[in-house]
Amino acid sequence: MAIKTGAGLIESLRKVKSVFYIGGEKVDNFVDHPIIKASLKSICLNYDLAHDPEYAELLTADSPLTREKVHLLVNIPTGPEDLVKRIEAVRLLQQKSGGTCTQRNVDPLVPAYSITYDIDQELGTEYHERYKEWLGHVQKNDLMINFSITDPKGDRTLRPHEQSDPDMYLRIVEKRKDGIVVRGAKCHQTNGIASHEKLIFPTRTMTEKDKDYVVAFAIPSDTKGIVHISARLPSDTRRYEGGIDQGNPFGSHTCTIFYNDVFVPWERVFMCGEYQFSPELLKRFGDHHRATYGGCNAGKADVMIGVTATLAEYNGLDNNSIIRDKISEMVSSAETMFACGLAAAYRGYKTESGAYHPNTVLANVSKINISRFPYEIARIATDIAGGLLFTLPSEKDFRNPDLHENFMKYFKGAKNASAEERLRMFSLLQSMIFGCNAVDLHASCPSAAGSFQAARLQINRVVDLKGKKRAAKIIAGVEG
Amino acid sequence: MAIKTGAGLIESLRKVKSVFYIGGEKVDNFVDHPIIKASLKSICLNYDLAHDPEYAELLTADSPLTREKVHLLVNIPTGPEDLVKRIEAVRLLQQKSGGTCTQRNVDPLVPAYSITYDIDQELGTEYHERYKEWLGHVQKNDLMINFSITDPKGDRTLRPHEQSDPDMYLRIVEKRKDGIVVRGAKCHQTNGIASHEKLIFPTRTMTEKDKDYVVAFAIPSDTKGIVHISARLPSDTRRYEGGIDQGNPFGSHTCTIFYNDVFVPWERVFMCGEYQFSPELLKRFGDHHRATYGGCNAGKADVMIGVTATLAEYNGLDNNSIIRDKISEMVSSAETMFACGLAAAYRGYKTESGAYHPNTVLANVSKINISRFPYEIARIATDIAGGLLFTLPSEKDFRNPDLHENFMKYFKGAKNASAEERLRMFSLLQSMIFGCNAVDLHASCPSAAGSFQAARLQINRVVDLKGKKRAAKIIAGVEG
Amino acid sequence: MAIKTGAGLIESLRKVKSVFYIGGEKVDNFVDHPIIKASLKSICLNYDLAHDPEYAELLTADSPLTREKVHLLVNIPTGPEDLVKRIEAVRLLQQKSGGTCTQRNVDPLVPAYSITYDIDQELGTEYHERYKEWLGHVQKNDLMINFSITDPKGDRTLRPHEQSDPDMYLRIVEKRKDGIVVRGAKCHQTNGIASHEKLIFPTRTMTEKDKDYVVAFAIPSDTKGIVHISARLPSDTRRYEGGIDQGNPFGSHTCTIFYNDVFVPWERVFMCGEYQFSPELLKRFGDHHRATYGGCNAGKADVMIGVTATLAEYNGLDNNSIIRDKISEMVSSAETMFACGLAAAYRGYKTESGAYHPNTVLANVSKINISRFPYEIARIATDIAGGLLFTLPSEKDFRNPDLHENFMKYFKGAKNASAEERLRMFSLLQSMIFGCNAVDLHASCPSAAGSFQAARLQINRVVDLKGKKRAAKIIAGVEG
Amino acid sequence: MAIKTGAGLIESLRKVKSVFYIGGEKVDNFVDHPIIKASLKSICLNYDLAHDPEYAELLTADSPLTREKVHLLVNIPTGPEDLVKRIEAVRLLQQKSGGTCTQRNVDPLVPAYSITYDIDQELGTEYHERYKEWLGHVQKNDLMINFSITDPKGDRTLRPHEQSDPDMYLRIVEKRKDGIVVRGAKCHQTNGIASHEKLIFPTRTMTEKDKDYVVAFAIPSDTKGIVHISARLPSDTRRYEGGIDQGNPFGSHTCTIFYNDVFVPWERVFMCGEYQFSPELLKRFGDHHRATYGGCNAGKADVMIGVTATLAEYNGLDNNSIIRDKISEMVSSAETMFACGLAAAYRGYKTESGAYHPNTVLANVSKINISRFPYEIARIATDIAGGLLFTLPSEKDFRNPDLHENFMKYFKGAKNASAEERLRMFSLLQSMIFGCNAVDLHASCPSAAGSFQAARLQINRVVDLKGKKRAAKIIAGVEG
Repeated sequence: MAIKTGAGLIESLRKVKSVFYIGGEKVDNFVDHPIIKASLKSICLNYDLAHDPEYAELLTADSPLTREKVHLLVNIPTGPEDLVKRIEAVRLLQQKSGGTCTQRNVDPLVPAYSITYDIDQELGTEYHERYKEWLGHVQKNDLMINFSITDPKGDRTLRPHEQSDPDMYLRIVEKRKDGIVVRGAKCHQTNGIASHEKLIFPTRTMTEKDKDYVVAFAIPSDTKGIVHISARLPSDTRRYEGGIDQGNPFGSHTCTIFYNDVFVPWERVFMCGEYQFSPELLKRFGDHHRATYGGCNAGKADVMIGVTATLAEYNGLDNNSIIRDKISEMVSSAETMFACGLAAAYRGYKTESGAYHPNTVLANVSKINISRFPYEIARIATDIAGGLLFTLPSEKDFRNPDLHENFMKYFKGAKNASAEERLRMFSLLQSMIFGCNAVDLHASCPSAAGSFQAARLQINRVVDLKGKKRAAKIIAGVEG
Repeated sequence: MAIKTGAGLIESLRKVKSVFYIGGEKVDNFVDHPIIKASLKSICLNYDLAHDPEYAELLTADSPLTREKVHLLVNIPTGPEDLVKRIEAVRLLQQKSGGTCTQRNVDPLVPAYSITYDIDQELGTEYHERYKEWLGHVQKNDLMINFSITDPKGDRTLRPHEQSDPDMYLRIVEKRKDGIVVRGAKCHQTNGIASHEKLIFPTRTMTEKDKDYVVAFAIPSDTKGIVHISARLPSDTRRYEGGIDQGNPFGSHTCTIFYNDVFVPWERVFMCGEYQFSPELLKRFGDHHRATYGGCNAGKADVMIGVTATLAEYNGLDNNSIIRDKISEMVSSAETMFACGLAAAYRGYKTESGAYHPNTVLANVSKINISRFPYEIARIATDIAGGLLFTLPSEKDFRNPDLHENFMKYFKGAKNASAEERLRMFSLLQSMIFGCNAVDLHASCPSAAGSFQAARLQINRVVDLKGKKRAAKIIAGVEG
Repeated sequence: MAIKTGAGLIESLRKVKSVFYIGGEKVDNFVDHPIIKASLKSICLNYDLAHDPEYAELLTADSPLTREKVHLLVNIPTGPEDLVKRIEAVRLLQQKSGGTCTQRNVDPLVPAYSITYDIDQELGTEYHERYKEWLGHVQKNDLMINFSITDPKGDRTLRPHEQSDPDMYLRIVEKRKDGIVVRGAKCHQTNGIASHEKLIFPTRTMTEKDKDYVVAFAIPSDTKGIVHISARLPSDTRRYEGGIDQGNPFGSHTCTIFYNDVFVPWERVFMCGEYQFSPELLKRFGDHHRATYGGCNAGKADVMIGVTATLAEYNGLDNNSIIRDKISEMVSSAETMFACGLAAAYRGYKTESGAYHPNTVLANVSKINISRFPYEIARIATDIAGGLLFTLPSEKDFRNPDLHENFMKYFKGAKNASAEERLRMFSLLQSMIFGCNAVDLHASCPSAAGSFQAARLQINRVVDLKGKKRAAKIIAGVEG
Repeated sequence: MAIKTGAGLIESLRKVKSVFYIGGEKVDNFVDHPIIKASLKSICLNYDLAHDPEYAELLTADSPLTREKVHLLVNIPTGPEDLVKRIEAVRLLQQKSGGTCTQRNVDPLVPAYSITYDIDQELGTEYHERYKEWLGHVQKNDLMINFSITDPKGDRTLRPHEQSDPDMYLRIVEKRKDGIVVRGAKCHQTNGIASHEKLIFPTRTMTEKDKDYVVAFAIPSDTKGIVHISARLPSDTRRYEGGIDQGNPFGSHTCTIFYNDVFVPWERVFMCGEYQFSPELLKRFGDHHRATYGGCNAGKADVMIGVTATLAEYNGLDNNSIIRDKISEMVSSAETMFACGLAAAYRGYKTESGAYHPNTVLANVSKINISRFPYEIARIATDIAGGLLFTLPSEKDFRNPDLHENFMKYFKGAKNASAEERLRMFSLLQSMIFGCNAVDLHASCPSAAGSFQAARLQINRVVDLKGKKRAAKIIAGVEG
């Protein structure tokens, strides 16, 4: 079987010699850097749970490409059940990783598959075969892919070719016999560094004048000219400290990546100037990712609900009717997000390529909901948890012999909950709301799977407003 | 084929000699009463669209019971696709009827089917066979069923047997050789009068002392002792006037029904004292009805979106970005409701009886959402529509020759929209928000498919809070 | 004292020979028309409570203009306490009239006062003296004023002079020696018919080319060429029936009004082409009316809270913690609206004319809040009230001897609440949400005191964003 | 004049020898500890701005107690304008400190003043004179007070005397001739360490059996037996790093404080067993603090609005209508919070002691609003800011010569905004939402001025529900 273990993954990543800066220093290999530890721990869950008998069926799939059992998150779905499994899988992974992103992003693999097919059909290119070749390689070696789309963008009112600096969107600066040279930057790269391969696509609708910006390709992450710089994440240095204070040993990690005149051989180029496909391409990426997000956020909510219910229990308030009502609200919000993701999956359609695509309206509605409900869930969690969420002592003070006895006495809860249990549980919630893992919560609205407003516009674009108007006119007697 | 047309339905209802009071008068037959016209028009849609080639496949099904093609809304679903069809069907029917309830309620038929099966299995009774007999009769004759559950309830803090008046919940007052005699009232009966048969079930969880209140049965609507009294609905007398002012020629109708010592033969009794099944029974009714409601409310929202978009167009504002953004919000809310209903359908399970049951958490979450989104949709519609919504003249004034020219001049819209078109469109929206059909909007929260709080409690009951707590404890390091 | 009684008001209105159409008929005098009865009852509260020793101090004021005691709602405020009294007064009036509009609109009297002063100061005109003359007449005779602003507007993307029909905004069609002739329509006129005088101002910002549309004046309501047409309001014909079914004997009433070449003498003209003052004029109208609305809506909410708490009590649920929590939410929303109105009043400023003006940002924020909270309050009321809200029988059925006993039995509540008490209370709530008085609820967002979006834009216009940006830049170290 | 400068404050705090643990270490004096620096910077603003000619009038007051000019935030208000000034002052301080808490808490000084007066009047005690003596000392020396109320509380369903451990609420363990000895802990102490004096009051309603827990007093912060332990705050160690990465050089700080058998002399005891005053005491604390919070949160929102508008400008989107609409929403929310605080201040009442008290309902409504609006404001800020908020590089990487040029190129914005400007602005927003200062945002709901639910219950307690019910009954015709 092609599926790696977590340990195997780390060994394979150790061989990728990517250029990586963090905290002002260039580090030789990121896998041993303490601040990356939590992120790798989350990523490894993807791999290890696929070997766990309880979850193997959910997390693996038969690839039509390699005719092998591959990891679910690198497989191309061909029917609704495949997409539904994906949404269930990401919910599970969030539950197991304390609501963090396990950073294996299958979503773009599929639209890249279908759009290259469509381009080839229309223009007689051979992108799809190239792409399948590459994807087979990914599946066989069970690789981590860093899919990149977002460019710096400069002035948002200007198109790529209108920017004062021509590099504000990644572009082709040279076309050679053996390949192309690209320049630019990709921002907000979850899982940027912990990857074997990059998969790059353009970030917005392009016009003919933007042709040089319409470029898609895949290359190894340690290709010359690629530079990764770690983002600073909230409370990141607690990763050095470990222990209770980091709240959750799992985490995620993001990068900025510069592409300083990077060479891409033709066999890895999947788009090169076909601007007319850019709207459909973006729609497809958005649809896939936004549908999946319903599952992610439900899983994150599950953890928050579990923590909140536990903290209420520690206060002796687990049967308080107001608190139960609020927890019921948290559940409703979680399941609403899940339902939208699922409905988008169940009601998708097959593309010409054979890859299955989620329902566009429902996928974008999923994004709208994950742009709001998580905050409301977090607010209720905060409300029920109470003030200790904001005033937890450090583990070092807690364990200081001068103080330990006092902490054990005063911080104990109802029903024999010890001070340490409470402290751990509060620290986990803290990490989700404003600690080490808070990025995962707060990025739901603006950036996860594109912005809120991008989803809004997509809904406007595809909803059958004309049909609804016509139906209203018939009822009102304005039309026959 | 067993399926009636609308005309056939009305003929058959004409033969039902139910006792009916409206406006202080006892009327001989309701089908000719002008105030009931709109409601019958909605109900007939159920029947007529099942004969429309465009919708016949959606609205019909093969009954395993009668081995005939029957109306979808009297069939027992045996898999997820059957439930999904139901949700699609109710959305369609709302779209076609201008957001009104077409009042054919299949939801209770299914839990009645499965619970009678379970009771028989456990207690050796023969309720299920009786029920199937009756249901076959319903399917073959394509009957309208008035399913009743809600009792007056008196003091809500007291159980049925604790009430000062023993009749505040419908109960068995006599058991005879040939049947039972029941007394009580059923409130809030959508489609109370336009029915061939009653199907009665208890309204709440009962204890052993409440045994006499645990009774289920079916009888013809014109059985002796049954009295229907019409509710007064908003702007009901505009039904007499017809025309533009009623806003929408479709509508729905509700009744209060008294059961003054009504005899029920044993072959029509489906429960008689089995109090221990009451919680499960209620859960099942709730689940079915709450899942379906997601479809209903999405359909109603579709109409409101269509009206709103048309009114914006009449103002020349169809491309205004703020208005488009608001309409996108309406669509999101509509589709979220639909998604929850669908997800509940897709992720249900088969009961022992073979009938398919929706997912309990998702069905109840659907109810939570339909308790809120419709108001927000209506608020946005109101916001975009503008003040004319509240100040429309009567059709009679509009057509008065003294005034007509002025109205035509001043009420015309952008892009050649005539005053009459605008007036009609506003009147339709008015009917939905505070006119003839406003009941359908405002009852979403408290009473449609049980109260908001009933859904909240059901979520609390079934959600796996223990599992979520355990998962949180593992992540936090409190449990191993 | 100049203050009329309710009876005196009606007598004086009887003498106003306004042209009025309702239900397709021209009626001679509206004061005896049964459908206007409820509206007059609300209006009379303004007058009668000013004579009630308990409220006289609140509802009267010393006019600097007439040097007499006049009704509060025709007086020009000169300090914050005057505005605060107004907000308290409208809250009281809503409480006493069951949440209906008592339709005495002082708000426009003040900006008309201050803007005419400013125009005169700048342009040497004599509008302010004319206006004071007229206002003194109003105060001395304690008249009802129908202030009109909203025009039909046609295509909203076009300015008045760009419309295909030049009359879509009211305009001067002729200037004569003795006065001007105007043509146009005024829409959405609460209190249109029950007025002695019209006070007309333009409805939007105008440019130089729109000069003919910049016209303000006052004339008697029965001036030749003025035609009033009654709006159809929800359940309006229940006003004929009276009794329990109308829910509330108080109400409000709105009109469309046509100005078919109406003559206005110069001494009653207050603006005539001064387009450059139109933005400030609109801002001032908006500010006054939007601040006041905080009080109105709090009063309406008080009634809804009272009804809801009573209905909960009738169900035996007055001590249920979830219900108490929901009622607390209703109170919060009500008081938030009140607080915004009050804060706008307390933190206003004196205009050059001496008239006191509310704070612009807070007044517009008040409008934003009254565009949302009332719906949420109504939703909670609906939720707690339960299904009977939608299925109340008619009073005639209730009193039918065939049925009365049954109703008395089954509709009685906990704690000796009789069926009639419950029916009355439900009917009151019904009238507010989708019955006779529902206009007052649903018009809060779009039209009361201008649209939601108008308030949004006004906030944008006046908020000191530059100052906030500068402060942020200093903190961030971007500016020194 | 009694008012210290910031520098003077720090000098005086240096002399306070409080016991303080942070990061597992006992530190000799907190004023030099780098992690406390930001908090002291915020606190000093209180002092320094009172010397700034622009703000001196706002931030100082004439004390009736000392007959001197004192700092506004240690003065007892005697009329509405004094409370209004307080709310304006805290808004200003938040604006100037980047939305952080400047931690000078006048709110409890006032209810302590008025309740000791009331106790003395009723019971003939001499608490009020003692308290005035102490307060005069505070005013003359312009001291920082750490007001403490919240106890650990253990099982929340049990009263203090019912807890398994008798010390879960602070209590009198010994009464001596010269004073009392107390034991317990106080949690969530904003400004715990940076204080000259403690002022302690009980945290909940007490019964007669809880008499030993009803104790109020003031003592120097370095009294023997008092132990402070620093909370770990989000990204706290960035305070060591300083620079751009901490986002905002201002901050706040919280502690847990143990009282290990601490002696309090009688002249500093202000309550000792008078349990019957505990409900009123708590109400008064809540009212004052909750009203003030309206100002705080408006100020914090001002900063967030300024940052957001600047970031939109950096993207070239400052005139985008959707973004302007969203910013208008942020302003509405900010001003609504402010309005509730102001309205509570304007509509308060004078207590018997002469101290002025805010309106209870409005103060608690203020809390309800600050429990929700700040999250919505933060969500919109996040939405508009975009993904860079989550992926900012460290300052060290930004300044690394290998990378600097690239960052300057790719992170520059529209209209000549430099990469560093953008980075600084994003870092400020990051600090507010999930960085160094995120505590100030997220604690709004659960703990600031008591919990959300505490405010709910207080509203329930004081709102005149009976009056509202009666008014409804009169309208409905149920009562005369």
